[in-house]
Amino acid sequence: MELTKQLAEAVLSADPLQDQRAVEMARNGLLDAAASALAAKEDEGIQKLMALVEQEGGAAQIPVMGQGKKVSRQSAAMLNGYLIHALDYDDVHSDVRGHPSAVIIPSLLSQLTDSKEYGDRFLAAYITGVEVMARLGESIGKAHYERGWHNTGTLGAIAAVCAIGYLKQVSQEELTKAIGFAGAQSAGMRKQFGSDMKPLQAGLAAKTAVWSIDLACSGFGGNDSVLDGALGFFSLYGDQELAESRLLEGYGSTWRIVAPGLWFKIYPFCSAAHHAADAILSLMREHAFLPEQVKQADVVFPPGGDAALIERTPLTGEEGRFSVEYVIALAIFGQTLTLDAFTKKTIPSYMRTWMKRVSREYDQTIEPHPDAVPKGRFTIVKLTLFDGTTISKRIDIPQGAPGNALSIDDIMKKLNSVTDDSHAQLMLQAVEEGNDSSYLQLLA
Amino acid sequence: MELTKQLAEAVLSADPLQDQRAVEMARNGLLDAAASALAAKEDEGIQKLMALVEQEGGAAQIPVMGQGKKVSRQSAAMLNGYLIHALDYDDVHSDVRGHPSAVIIPSLLSQLTDSKEYGDRFLAAYITGVEVMARLGESIGKAHYERGWHNTGTLGAIAAVCAIGYLKQVSQEELTKAIGFAGAQSAGMRKQFGSDMKPLQAGLAAKTAVWSIDLACSGFGGNDSVLDGALGFFSLYGDQELAESRLLEGYGSTWRIVAPGLWFKIYPFCSAAHHAADAILSLMREHAFLPEQVKQADVVFPPGGDAALIERTPLTGEEGRFSVEYVIALAIFGQTLTLDAFTKKTIPSYMRTWMKRVSREYDQTIEPHPDAVPKGRFTIVKLTLFDGTTISKRIDIPQGAPGNALSIDDIMKKLNSVTDDSHAQLMLQAVEEGNDSSYLQLLA
Repeated sequence: MELTKQLAEAVLSADPLQDQRAVEMARNGLLDAAASALAAKEDEGIQKLMALVEQEGGAAQIPVMGQGKKVSRQSAAMLNGYLIHALDYDDVHSDVRGHPSAVIIPSLLSQLTDSKEYGDRFLAAYITGVEVMARLGESIGKAHYERGWHNTGTLGAIAAVCAIGYLKQVSQEELTKAIGFAGAQSAGMRKQFGSDMKPLQAGLAAKTAVWSIDLACSGFGGNDSVLDGALGFFSLYGDQELAESRLLEGYGSTWRIVAPGLWFKIYPFCSAAHHAADAILSLMREHAFLPEQVKQADVVFPPGGDAALIERTPLTGEEGRFSVEYVIALAIFGQTLTLDAFTKKTIPSYMRTWMKRVSREYDQTIEPHPDAVPKGRFTIVKLTLFDGTTISKRIDIPQGAPGNALSIDDIMKKLNSVTDDSHAQLMLQAVEEGNDSSYLQLLA
Repeated sequence: MELTKQLAEAVLSADPLQDQRAVEMARNGLLDAAASALAAKEDEGIQKLMALVEQEGGAAQIPVMGQGKKVSRQSAAMLNGYLIHALDYDDVHSDVRGHPSAVIIPSLLSQLTDSKEYGDRFLAAYITGVEVMARLGESIGKAHYERGWHNTGTLGAIAAVCAIGYLKQVSQEELTKAIGFAGAQSAGMRKQFGSDMKPLQAGLAAKTAVWSIDLACSGFGGNDSVLDGALGFFSLYGDQELAESRLLEGYGSTWRIVAPGLWFKIYPFCSAAHHAADAILSLMREHAFLPEQVKQADVVFPPGGDAALIERTPLTGEEGRFSVEYVIALAIFGQTLTLDAFTKKTIPSYMRTWMKRVSREYDQTIEPHPDAVPKGRFTIVKLTLFDGTTISKRIDIPQGAPGNALSIDDIMKKLNSVTDDSHAQLMLQAVEEGNDSSYLQLLA
């Protein structure tokens, strides 16, 4: 098989606009990404990155979300990618085991500099990018993430190159080589989870994509079979055999942006803790108890279901984005699970002390729900009170996940929570108008 | 063990200038790198890269070798790294199993923008970079390269970050984080060997280093133990256990730039074919025969000794840089093994036909020479003539390799072959003067 060439061919010849549900989902995805980025517009990290970019200089080509400044196309891809993912508030996709829109959307927006009018092709390109990233995620195998790769980073550049390739309708030869350039620059480590570098890894994948397509279109020489063979991308980062059976199977018949679908987040922390958040909030609504009454909180996952939750004793709200212990504690103390709880501020010591009451358990005997998101996942939160009472709640499909999806109204609520009404309305309009200059409004 | 912090500490506290041989070797390395880059100054790839960099814009901060233009610091690191490695004419190091100077030198030269005067510290930083890259190469294990990673790319960014960290005397905390940023962006695939992307992978590692140190010094948040633990760099790309025993052992007592030492190339092609080149040229000198008299040429390696020679039937001179078959054929036809034979030009069909007479063999029963370069390597070229005569020559240490080193005169000869005498003399002077503005002369 020649996976690289066949992928390029499949991408360029499909027509995602035939599927109206995919188009709707793409519009929601754009708005949700804008909301996620605006939520981070005052982030300290973006200020530092902007200063470094300024030091290097560059043409003023594409705006950076909420920053009132334009930077070069590659820098914009990086900075907008960083912003969308900065608070881990952006969509995830279970096939990707990562964040597709944070890479795909900024890569595409960085293309809107020329006088061409892409129109609806923009949405089709976004659907394509999510599709390829989901297929890469499935093809690379579970061990990829488990070994320590950050899928958003390692899969994002190739996927975004396919999205841009579709948008610009580059030739098959150009796209094949661009996939190769992106593949050979793919990186990102889970070891960076909990630091500013995690969202930057999304931005860097977007930047690599913009750069890789330019390299290919300039005629720069590159290998045209980087996804293939014993030294190829899948052999190196994952599983060649799996890729050969999964990467292209039925490409274009249904779209992964719809099924299994993007998962939009109502909480600004790692999606692996969303089930637990729904569960504890539900328990809090159904039962009246105080923090001091709770002797123990057990959080039960399937084995490996908490792999992304790398912080068990977080010191700051930022680290707490990857801590189910912190999420449970916040809810128990009656605090809202909103942005202000997940900043660089130190977690109060009474809460850090209480968090010791939370323990994680793994149960492989529990049957997952057939429609669970992600597949095979569930979380049970079980509270034991000092008076001996135990109460528990199991969640298989958290709010916002496919099967329990947010409506456009929910997404507008999220957008309204991070910017004023008129700005939010302008963005809704921009997405509905669907032309290049209106899409650029998302960056305003 | 805390490898990341300990590496930063070891780097910052050592004093490479104590070793005069290391300092001499560093001076030779600078001149050899300049010669290698100037040999490529008319390369088509650099023109395309320059045009792409121009399109992005950027401050005019650092010159690009032989191009008469300045670009931003990051872009200069990338472009100069590309140029040094473009023709595979630059030094290699057996511990690295790759090209240290193509990454370390451009990263360091990109720092010479401020008003600080680093002086001799520049050479010390270069020695440091080679040291760390060699130690990373040993620590990552042989399987790393064999699986398909391009060590120059994957190890270069961390090594160059250590070199810059030493030059600028950043704090231990900054260097620790910078190592983490570089580690999480490390990439490069052997699949790209034989294309323009191979040398670009050296340049990209240099660019990543410049960017990573800036990120760390800006206070951007990152993990401070990226080389450690089950999700760390060595676990992910190589062998954690090996790294724990090798990375820091005896740091600063001797310098790898001297032992095993840089290997400067007298031929502009992959070092894995240099033994065979010395052998065939020696046979040609000793015996008078014509191409049509040669029935068969057997090239005998230890198993795996030809892994880098991925082209058995090259179509162009550029592909021929990775083909022992082509090198043998060139020599047999009495052509010189110089730059003009390794361009994008198609190899004449009579030569491609003749190349079929070359076959590769592997013999694990042959004892390598104790001082062989690289360790365990040898190459035997055995010619069988149509009249039944067989003649053969074995090479263990090729010309230019440590143990058979080029003198400064040899390096000046290489420099003189790619630029005029007065320019070459200016460069020699620049390296001897050893101050920041003189080092910048190397880029003029």
